Amino acid sequence: MNRILFQGITILPMTRPQDRVERGDILVEGDRISYIGPSKEWEGDFQVFDGEGKVALPGFVNAHTHLAMVFLRGFADDMTLDRWLREKIWPMEARLKAEHVYRFSLLGAAELISSGVTTFADMYFHMDQVARAVEETGLRASLSTGMIAQGNPFPGEVLKRGTNFALTFRGKAGGRITTMLAPHAPYTCPPDFMKKVREIALKENLPVHTHISETRKEVDDCLAEYGLTPPELLDQAGLFDCLVLAAHCVVLEDQDFPILKKLKGVAHCPVSNLKLASGVAPVKKMVDSGVNVALGTDGASSNNRLELLQEIKTASLLAKGVNFDPLALPAFQTLQMATLGGAKALCLEDQIGTLEVGKKADIVVFDFNSPHLQPCFDHYSHLVYSALPSDVHSVMVDGTWLLRERKYQTLDFEEVKEEALKATKEIVEE
Amino acid sequence: MNRILFQGITILPMTRPQDRVERGDILVEGDRISYIGPSKEWEGDFQVFDGEGKVALPGFVNAHTHLAMVFLRGFADDMTLDRWLREKIWPMEARLKAEHVYRFSLLGAAELISSGVTTFADMYFHMDQVARAVEETGLRASLSTGMIAQGNPFPGEVLKRGTNFALTFRGKAGGRITTMLAPHAPYTCPPDFMKKVREIALKENLPVHTHISETRKEVDDCLAEYGLTPPELLDQAGLFDCLVLAAHCVVLEDQDFPILKKLKGVAHCPVSNLKLASGVAPVKKMVDSGVNVALGTDGASSNNRLELLQEIKTASLLAKGVNFDPLALPAFQTLQMATLGGAKALCLEDQIGTLEVGKKADIVVFDFNSPHLQPCFDHYSHLVYSALPSDVHSVMVDGTWLLRERKYQTLDFEEVKEEALKATKEIVEE
Repeated sequence: MNRILFQGITILPMTRPQDRVERGDILVEGDRISYIGPSKEWEGDFQVFDGEGKVALPGFVNAHTHLAMVFLRGFADDMTLDRWLREKIWPMEARLKAEHVYRFSLLGAAELISSGVTTFADMYFHMDQVARAVEETGLRASLSTGMIAQGNPFPGEVLKRGTNFALTFRGKAGGRITTMLAPHAPYTCPPDFMKKVREIALKENLPVHTHISETRKEVDDCLAEYGLTPPELLDQAGLFDCLVLAAHCVVLEDQDFPILKKLKGVAHCPVSNLKLASGVAPVKKMVDSGVNVALGTDGASSNNRLELLQEIKTASLLAKGVNFDPLALPAFQTLQMATLGGAKALCLEDQIGTLEVGKKADIVVFDFNSPHLQPCFDHYSHLVYSALPSDVHSVMVDGTWLLRERKYQTLDFEEVKEEALKATKEIVEE
Repeated sequence: MNRILFQGITILPMTRPQDRVERGDILVEGDRISYIGPSKEWEGDFQVFDGEGKVALPGFVNAHTHLAMVFLRGFADDMTLDRWLREKIWPMEARLKAEHVYRFSLLGAAELISSGVTTFADMYFHMDQVARAVEETGLRASLSTGMIAQGNPFPGEVLKRGTNFALTFRGKAGGRITTMLAPHAPYTCPPDFMKKVREIALKENLPVHTHISETRKEVDDCLAEYGLTPPELLDQAGLFDCLVLAAHCVVLEDQDFPILKKLKGVAHCPVSNLKLASGVAPVKKMVDSGVNVALGTDGASSNNRLELLQEIKTASLLAKGVNFDPLALPAFQTLQMATLGGAKALCLEDQIGTLEVGKKADIVVFDFNSPHLQPCFDHYSHLVYSALPSDVHSVMVDGTWLLRERKYQTLDFEEVKEEALKATKEIVEE
């Protein structure tokens, strides 16, 4: 069995701020953490990781993305959402074949791994190919096939396909893959469809991943059609009897907050929301209302990165700036959104999200040697306000190294890159 | 004479978007650019830089910082501005000795260099020590001694000290150092002091660096005391007859925009303004009003980094998000703020800010090989929305390498770090 000993490392278990261990050890046996605490003498046969100058914390959870969209990174920016989708994104996506999704997922995986993201929640299509990339690269993921009922003559087929994927792939990759049902959004999946999703989700014990209240227009249209906000509409359809992860929640009315509290979590995507000019989600108010907030990047086409450090910093800064409150979203709380908050939102809080004995060994190690991390008074502050993805030194999932001293352990980046560029060329020049 | 040939490199001169050269050459002779254009055959003796996969653009200009404040990075976050200054920042600054400022300036310089910042505008004290760090590290800088008249029984002495520094150090470090007069802000320097600054600035041909309208409170106090906004007050004092660089300009009234147009530039510091909960500066309206907007980080204590890529992305995203306009501050325009906009704000537009024949060879080279830069449809987009400081490959100022393949050429980082940490310890434990 795999036995890896992190020695003399600063440990941020992300349980409570005071649980930080300034110079501690972590023992990983198999895929789990079996010791975490002060440094001590060890006897036995271990692979030793020298923690000098390093900081270990739970891997980041990217709670909302569309991984394969990396092929559209920077393909079209600075456009209105409507033109962007109709003229740029959708025509390109229509050309996507299964193999392309695999190639782009590998490229996306490389970016996630090198920036300390160990788990991601993905909603897209050709999801079997995303699962293939997850299996190979060693990442953890909650995968779902996006379902759009509106305008489809056979919504039953859409639901069947989404359900089939979820049931077939749940538990794959040694348990690293979990699955969800993903009705795309209330404006693309009417209430009767949502009710069917609810039935299956409850019967099969599947969580649900959806988009809610991303734009002013979506909320206005919903109010005009139903006299209800999107959260009210879905609540009335009973969807929140299920375990729900909802992305965005940017445009909220007062009555939405207690409703959102019923969810497993909201995936706040501050960078994407700004870039698409949707606005700033009322995160402080959500948190104050007891809503579990996680962080996501959304697709690379509207971000344009997939790493979480910028989401962490942006979330914290925006909350301060728009509320004129420098105490809003302090460092530890924001860092927790990217770890335990994400784990909860993905229904994985029993397994990941904190570093604790018995939990899965999903660990990211930062090197605190860079100029922008000097001096260091507070590790939480530095991770939120100063650290960069390039400070990620090593990454482990399920006790297996995915990145070691910034070298990929489960993929060949040059090959991944070449194949992804070849696939992009095929699509763009088709 | 120094002759360096960049071959087969993508060149973004930042003059106009269409001036991009996909595969070009740059010849640097001595401290200046003597050729820029399509790749061609060269004869002679050059140091050759292979541009394969690389992108060259003008070095970034950090138009507002307090470099030596790196020692307070992360020392105190998530506090109200008033408590933060009174309980944390000022007591520590009071213990700063000249040698400390030198050590911290070197640490700050290391961060600037490794992130592609080649020029910075600095306002602090013990500025001779900042100049010493600039001289040694090869950076370019516009330096000024912060002057606070309010509460000082000898404001004449304050002015004399600031003027002496500016006159003594102007043109030092082979011309890489320029200087300014820096009356701290309208709320710390009353109009009669500002008038004296104006006189000297005009007589000695010195530009002026100041803070304007950073917070709601500052503007309200100014309106209460003078019946004028801070820009109106300074305009009435005649200060804008000088060449003025004004940091922040967050809280503006309609009448302020035509006044700010008279300035050399406004240093927009979006990250610091959010972190201190001052708000979001109306950058789009400034730009639309013809104000030259540059970008700055402010001190590391309120950012907490000194690199410009996050300011560029944050500036662009905030403009889109708060105006609900995805077309606000498109990529090229925002990137220009960090280059030519900064150069203008520092009165250096004849020398730097674009890559052109005859201009100084202040060049930053990005490596476009990272996962988050794949694929690449548009270099401007990638630099604004995707690139990270770690993508900076090499940096040159005045034709001299400061960073080459991510290795410092003019400083020993381990030594700089050790000395800075030692100095920090002295101050904190005093």
